Amino acid sequence: MSALLRPARREDTAELLRLIRELARYEKAADQVETDEAQLASTLFDAGATAHAIVAEQGGRLVGMAIYFFNYSTWQGRNGLYLEDLFVEPEQRGAGIGKALLARLAVIAVERDCGRFEWSVLDWNTPAIEFYESLGARAQSEWVRYRLEGEALRALARTANQGVSE
Amino acid sequence: MSALLRPARREDTAELLRLIRELARYEKAADQVETDEAQLASTLFDAGATAHAIVAEQGGRLVGMAIYFFNYSTWQGRNGLYLEDLFVEPEQRGAGIGKALLARLAVIAVERDCGRFEWSVLDWNTPAIEFYESLGARAQSEWVRYRLEGEALRALARTANQGVSE
Repeated sequence: MSALLRPARREDTAELLRLIRELARYEKAADQVETDEAQLASTLFDAGATAHAIVAEQGGRLVGMAIYFFNYSTWQGRNGLYLEDLFVEPEQRGAGIGKALLARLAVIAVERDCGRFEWSVLDWNTPAIEFYESLGARAQSEWVRYRLEGEALRALARTANQGVSE
Repeated sequence: MSALLRPARREDTAELLRLIRELARYEKAADQVETDEAQLASTLFDAGATAHAIVAEQGGRLVGMAIYFFNYSTWQGRNGLYLEDLFVEPEQRGAGIGKALLARLAVIAVERDCGRFEWSVLDWNTPAIEFYESLGARAQSEWVRYRLEGEALRALARTANQGVSE
């Protein structure tokens, strides 16, 4: 049976949340899924949403998804396409659905004149890394991502309009 | 003299490009700036643009900038704010302009209900890393970014609609 790839729609929200929870269980991070249907629908499907999803549908249900947004390269003065999460149900793997989702995103990147297609991978995930390198992707290993969240983020926000700021 | 922080406007484009070129020279990457005024204006100021800039103005000219976009956390079902580039002219440093730009972005992140404020740093840039850690930011060192571009990107796009895809 072949899978149909298409942009996600608002009525896919419950199925998307099911896939997100499956992905989290697979990554042993089920307790880290904080979102719910209303929030997911709002951030993916409301007017002005900057995050988007492509899904793989098979036999009337979703078996895979890719969630992405547009990042930016200052040197290029162009958007890039950034793949935040890719997931195919374990029992559907090996049929090329994951690669088809990546190819569909590559088409969107080319059509939107994106200079780059990027994503991140855990440094111990050797099978994924080998697959990505087989596609011609290259590691940006000299870059380390930093994250500010929670109280540290709010503390920085509270310093705004002090000092040099107007 | 104090700097005024404000969102960039289309008429700032030439000054923004000057700052981008200064940043590139500072990073010994001047040859990597491929963009021009028209492309920069289009990708930052056209309707539907997903990348944005905040600038620091002093004495009628721009002395600093921060370029950012909204990324996404699937677990949170929320956008994050991602800082792509931050630059303050070397002769204006030490007056708190860089930290004020970061604080302004933190305000935008909090107002837009972003769960995270993120950016990347070169792993050898110890002074920057120490500053970021002093703000409470934490390295996401287990993640490696992969990049597909140029002919490898177009080759993947050409495989779309083969195999499992409709």
